[in-house]
Amino acid sequence: MTDLGERMHALVRRLYPLCRSITGDGVRETLAVVGEQLPLTVHEVPTGTRVLDWTVPREWNIRDAYVADATGRRVVDFRESNLHVVGYSVPVHTRMPLTELRRHLHTLPDQPDLVPYRTSYYAPTWGFCLAQSTLDALPDGEYEVFIDATLADGSLTYAEHVVPGQVEDEVLVSCHVCHPSLANDNLAGIAVAVQLALSLENPYHTYRFVFAPGTIGAITWLARNRGRIERVRHGVVLACAGDRGSLTYKQSRRGDAPVDRVFRHVLAGRPHEIRAFSPYGYDERQYCSPGFDLGVGSLTRTPYAGYPEYHTSGDDPDFVTGESMVDTLRVLQEAFAVLDRDRAYVNLSPYGEPQLGRRGLYDSLGGRSDAHDAQLAMLWVLNLSDGTHSLLDVAERAGLPFGAVATAADALRDAGLLKEA
Amino acid sequence: MTDLGERMHALVRRLYPLCRSITGDGVRETLAVVGEQLPLTVHEVPTGTRVLDWTVPREWNIRDAYVADATGRRVVDFRESNLHVVGYSVPVHTRMPLTELRRHLHTLPDQPDLVPYRTSYYAPTWGFCLAQSTLDALPDGEYEVFIDATLADGSLTYAEHVVPGQVEDEVLVSCHVCHPSLANDNLAGIAVAVQLALSLENPYHTYRFVFAPGTIGAITWLARNRGRIERVRHGVVLACAGDRGSLTYKQSRRGDAPVDRVFRHVLAGRPHEIRAFSPYGYDERQYCSPGFDLGVGSLTRTPYAGYPEYHTSGDDPDFVTGESMVDTLRVLQEAFAVLDRDRAYVNLSPYGEPQLGRRGLYDSLGGRSDAHDAQLAMLWVLNLSDGTHSLLDVAERAGLPFGAVATAADALRDAGLLKEA
Amino acid sequence: MTDLGERMHALVRRLYPLCRSITGDGVRETLAVVGEQLPLTVHEVPTGTRVLDWTVPREWNIRDAYVADATGRRVVDFRESNLHVVGYSVPVHTRMPLTELRRHLHTLPDQPDLVPYRTSYYAPTWGFCLAQSTLDALPDGEYEVFIDATLADGSLTYAEHVVPGQVEDEVLVSCHVCHPSLANDNLAGIAVAVQLALSLENPYHTYRFVFAPGTIGAITWLARNRGRIERVRHGVVLACAGDRGSLTYKQSRRGDAPVDRVFRHVLAGRPHEIRAFSPYGYDERQYCSPGFDLGVGSLTRTPYAGYPEYHTSGDDPDFVTGESMVDTLRVLQEAFAVLDRDRAYVNLSPYGEPQLGRRGLYDSLGGRSDAHDAQLAMLWVLNLSDGTHSLLDVAERAGLPFGAVATAADALRDAGLLKEA
Repeated sequence: MTDLGERMHALVRRLYPLCRSITGDGVRETLAVVGEQLPLTVHEVPTGTRVLDWTVPREWNIRDAYVADATGRRVVDFRESNLHVVGYSVPVHTRMPLTELRRHLHTLPDQPDLVPYRTSYYAPTWGFCLAQSTLDALPDGEYEVFIDATLADGSLTYAEHVVPGQVEDEVLVSCHVCHPSLANDNLAGIAVAVQLALSLENPYHTYRFVFAPGTIGAITWLARNRGRIERVRHGVVLACAGDRGSLTYKQSRRGDAPVDRVFRHVLAGRPHEIRAFSPYGYDERQYCSPGFDLGVGSLTRTPYAGYPEYHTSGDDPDFVTGESMVDTLRVLQEAFAVLDRDRAYVNLSPYGEPQLGRRGLYDSLGGRSDAHDAQLAMLWVLNLSDGTHSLLDVAERAGLPFGAVATAADALRDAGLLKEA
Repeated sequence: MTDLGERMHALVRRLYPLCRSITGDGVRETLAVVGEQLPLTVHEVPTGTRVLDWTVPREWNIRDAYVADATGRRVVDFRESNLHVVGYSVPVHTRMPLTELRRHLHTLPDQPDLVPYRTSYYAPTWGFCLAQSTLDALPDGEYEVFIDATLADGSLTYAEHVVPGQVEDEVLVSCHVCHPSLANDNLAGIAVAVQLALSLENPYHTYRFVFAPGTIGAITWLARNRGRIERVRHGVVLACAGDRGSLTYKQSRRGDAPVDRVFRHVLAGRPHEIRAFSPYGYDERQYCSPGFDLGVGSLTRTPYAGYPEYHTSGDDPDFVTGESMVDTLRVLQEAFAVLDRDRAYVNLSPYGEPQLGRRGLYDSLGGRSDAHDAQLAMLWVLNLSDGTHSLLDVAERAGLPFGAVATAADALRDAGLLKEA
Repeated sequence: MTDLGERMHALVRRLYPLCRSITGDGVRETLAVVGEQLPLTVHEVPTGTRVLDWTVPREWNIRDAYVADATGRRVVDFRESNLHVVGYSVPVHTRMPLTELRRHLHTLPDQPDLVPYRTSYYAPTWGFCLAQSTLDALPDGEYEVFIDATLADGSLTYAEHVVPGQVEDEVLVSCHVCHPSLANDNLAGIAVAVQLALSLENPYHTYRFVFAPGTIGAITWLARNRGRIERVRHGVVLACAGDRGSLTYKQSRRGDAPVDRVFRHVLAGRPHEIRAFSPYGYDERQYCSPGFDLGVGSLTRTPYAGYPEYHTSGDDPDFVTGESMVDTLRVLQEAFAVLDRDRAYVNLSPYGEPQLGRRGLYDSLGGRSDAHDAQLAMLWVLNLSDGTHSLLDVAERAGLPFGAVATAADALRDAGLLKEA
C-alpha cells in the first residue's frame, strides 16, 4: 500500500468508531478530525430553520444503549457498534418480553451474521439492529431496553473547504458525513475528498468541497447558497470510494453536461460502468432536482446498494483498501485536469493546413505512412478549431488522449496558430 | 374462449358470407349487422361526387355468377364463395372456349387449392377466381360464363360511431369494410373495433370509429372532414386483428407521433414487431399522405400480406380466434388509456426533493437499500416534471410501467406538489 | 480485361517511369501525356508565390544519381528506379565511407526486398532509398555519391479540365500528380479521372478535374480559386484507385455532406468501407480545412497506407488492374449520376393519394399482395415530396435504388403530380 493509500485508510479507521447521524456530536467530531488535515469552515444551522421544503430537525445525541437479558447481560450493546441502535431513536428505558421487543428489532434474515444499518429520522420511534443469528439465540422472557439519547433543539452541522481558482466558476465535490460505522459509505469518500483537495494547486476552476449529512445536509447547503448556485458549473457526489470493485460514474440529470463527458472520456479504456441518471441514490438527487438541474454526477466504485455489505456491519475498514482509494483519487484528478483545461480554440490559419514544417512542428522527411500521435493531434486541433469544438470534442473525435490534444493545442498556440475562442 | 372472444368470433362468422365491395348492398348489410351492436351514423355519398383527387364510382351489386361446363354444371360458382368473382366485374353472359376464358381466370399456382381475391374497381372488365386445382381439372371445350351484376349510379356507404370525450380532440379508429369473405382482413378488425367502442367510458379524448371501404372510403371521409381534420390528434388503422400471430404496430409517417410512442411502450415486454411507416398497406396511406400527415399508425397481428392465407379463401373464420381478438382489444385499450392519461406536469417544489415523509408519501424507516416502485415513481415524476416531460416520457426514462407513474402523479397532485403543465 | 480497363492500365504503364515530384519536368511530362487524351489547361505558378500559409518552393529537376562502389559499379542507380533518390535531394558529388553514408540511406528493414519512397521537400538534404537486402550486401569501404539535380527558381505546375454543366455549381475531382514510380498511388487515380471526364455528357453540375501535386498543389489551387470556392458544392479526392481491394469512401469533414450520403448509398450492397473524416491522408486535408470545409470526400480502393506495398517499389503496374480501375470508374459515374439527379419535389396532390390508376400509373387489378417496385417508388415519392425530402432521402427511407425513385419522379412530374421544390 502506498503512503497515500495508507494515509487515507488510516483516516477511515480513525473515523470509523464515531457515531455519526444527520446531526449531533458525531458529525462535529468527524469534521474536527478532517479539519486536522484540511482547513474547514464549519457551519451550524439551528433546529427549526426552514431549508427549501424541509426544516432542520432537532439534534440527536446518544451516550449509551443496550438490550439486557434477565441476568443483566447486554445481549445487544451500543458500545460494541453504533449500528446496533436505530439512528435518531428516542430515549427509552423499560422492560418488555421478547415477543413485544421483536417489533423494535431489525435483522437481515438473508445475511444472518450481519447487523443492518437503520434510521428513523423523521418518525419518533426507537429500535435496535442486530444479527439474525444473535436474535435466534435469544431465549424468550423479559428484557431490559435502554437508550440514553437526547433529541433536542440544537443544530445541523456541515463544513466546506474551498480551493480558489483562476475563475469564480466552481466545481463542487460533495460527500455525505451522516453514516455511522460504515467504512465505504462514506468514510472512504471523505478520505479521498481530503486528499483531492490537498492535491489541487492553482486550479482553473474554484473547487468547493462540501462535507454534509445526506439529504437534509445537501438541502441545507443548497438553501443557503441558492443565490450563488449558478456559479456551480460542474460537480461530483463522491461515495463508496474504497471498495475493491471498479468505478461507476452516474451521469447528471442532463446526461450531456461537461462533467458527464469528461468522466466518460477519462474512464474509457479501463473497466468501469456509466449509468444514466436516476433520482435515487446520494445527494445528486438534490443537486439534480429540476429547479437546480446542476451538472453534478456521482462517482462511486461499486455503486449505491450494489454490494452485499452495503448498509451493514460488513462495510467495515477491511472492506476498503488504500489501493482502491488511490485509484478513485487518480481518476478524479485526471477528470478535473480535463475540466480545468478544456476549452475551444480558433485556428488562425484556417484556409488549408498551415505549414507546420517551417515552424518546426512537422517531420521534414515525407513519404512515411505513419504519423506520430503528436502530429496527428496537431492536425486534429487545427481542423476542428473553429470555435465550436472544445479540446475534449477533438480528443473524442480523434480517438486520442485528452493530454495529447492539449499538448498539441499548447504548441499551436505558442506558434501563433491558435487562440482561445 | 371467453364470452368476449366468442362474441367477436360470432360477429366474424355472421359477416363472413356477405359480398362486400367498395360500394353496394354488401357494405350496407354489414353496417346494419354492426349497427345492431353499436349505434352507427351511416353516410351515403352519391356516385360522381368529387372526393380529393378521386370521384365516387358507380355502385356495384351482384346477384349471381358462374362458369358452367357443356353439361350446364357450375364449375365456378359465386353461390359457393363470393371470392369466385373479380370484384366490380361488369355483367357478362356468353359462351367461349376454355382457351379464351383463361384470360379471365385468376388462380394461385403456388397455392393450388386456394381461391385468390381479386378486384378491378377502376377498369371495366370481368373475371373469375378459382383454385389452380379446379382449373387443372377443367377439360377443354366451351363454357358458359354468367355474371349477373349491375354497375350503376348509386352511392358509396360508410359509417361512424363517436364516443364523446372530455375534450374535442379526437382519436380515430379506422377499419376497412370492403373485403368480401375474408375473415382476418377485415372482419376481425371490425369485431375488435366494435368491442373497443363499447368499452370506452367517459374517455378523455373523443373517439371516432370509421367503418369505410378501403382507399376510396378513407379518401371520401377525409374529403368530407377536411375542415375539422386538425381535431384528429391520434389514430389507428385496425386490420388483420384476429390471426394467431403476434402484434405488429406500423408507425405513422411522423414516426414519433404520440400514438407511435404509446404503442411502442405498451407493446414492450411482449412478443411484437414495430415497423417503420411505408406508403403501402391499409388506409394509413391516406391519413399519412403529406397534406394530412396525421399521427395515425396501424395495428395488426400478422401484418399486411404477411401470411400465406392473405387475400385467399384460406382467410376464413377458422383462421381467426377469439383469443387473438381479445388480445388485440386489450392492447388497444391499454394504449388508449395511456393516450388519455398522458400529460406533462410541473413540480411545484422543484428545488431539492420535497419532504415526502411528512406528507405520508415516503417510508419513515431509512437505511434500506431497496425502494418501492411507488416511491421510485414519485421521485421520477418530481424530477422530470418541469413542464417538458409527459408521464410517458417519465415512464420510458424510468423504465417503469405507465400505470405506476400515473398513480404517483395522482398522489403528488393530491398532495399539492404537482400541477398540470 | 476490357478495352476500357486496358486503356487505363496502358496509361498507368506509360506514366510509370516518369520522375514526378511536387515541381519539375516530371509533372509537366505527365500532364502532357494526360493532355493527349483529355484537353488540359496547364498552370505554372512561379517559385516564391505566396499561397495561403505556404510559398511555392524552388523547382526541382534531376538528371542522374547513383551510389557507386570502389570499382565504379553503381550499387544504387536512379536510372533503374526514380524511387532510389529522396525527392528534392540537393545536388551532391563526394566520396564517403559506408558508415557515414548510412545516415543518408533509407530502407525498410521489415520489407527487405522493397525500396521505400521518401521525400524531403522543405528541408535541404539528400538521400538514397534502397532495399535492405541491397544494403546488407554492401561491403564496408568508401563509396562515391552523385546526385545531378537542380533546385532553382521555376514554377509549380498543375492542370485543370472542366466539363461545363447546366449549372455553375461545381463538382471537384482532385488527383495528386506528385508521386514518382508508384502505380496505385496515384497513376491509377489519374487514369480513372481521365476516363471519368471523357464519359460525362451534358452533366447537370459543372465538373472540374484538378491534377496537382499533393498538399502544395491543392493549396495553390485553393489560393488561386478562393474567390469562387463557394461554387464547389461537392467533390472527391481520388487516389489508390486500382488495387485489388474493395472500395473505401472517406467522408468529408462535415460527414453528412450530400457527397457523403451519395457514396454511402451507391456503395451499399457491395463490399466496401465507409470511414469517418480524419485530417490525415490526401488533399481532402486541404479542401476540408475549417476555413473551406468543403463537401469533399475521398475515394480509394485500399485506403491510404493500408497495404504493405504502399509507398514502396511494390506499388508497380502489376499491383493495379484494369478491372479494378473500371470498377472504381463505374462507382464514380453512378455517384455523380445521383448527385446530378438528386433534388426535392413538391407533391401537387398531397391530400390523400392521387388516383394513379386513371393516369395509367397503377395496376388496375387489385387484391394482389405484391407491388411492383415502380409503383412502390411512386407511392414513396408522393408521400415524401413535401419539399424537404430529396429523391435520395426517398430512396434511403424506402430502401429502393435511387434510379427507381428518380424514374418514378419523372413519371409523376410528367403526369402533373409533382413539381421541383
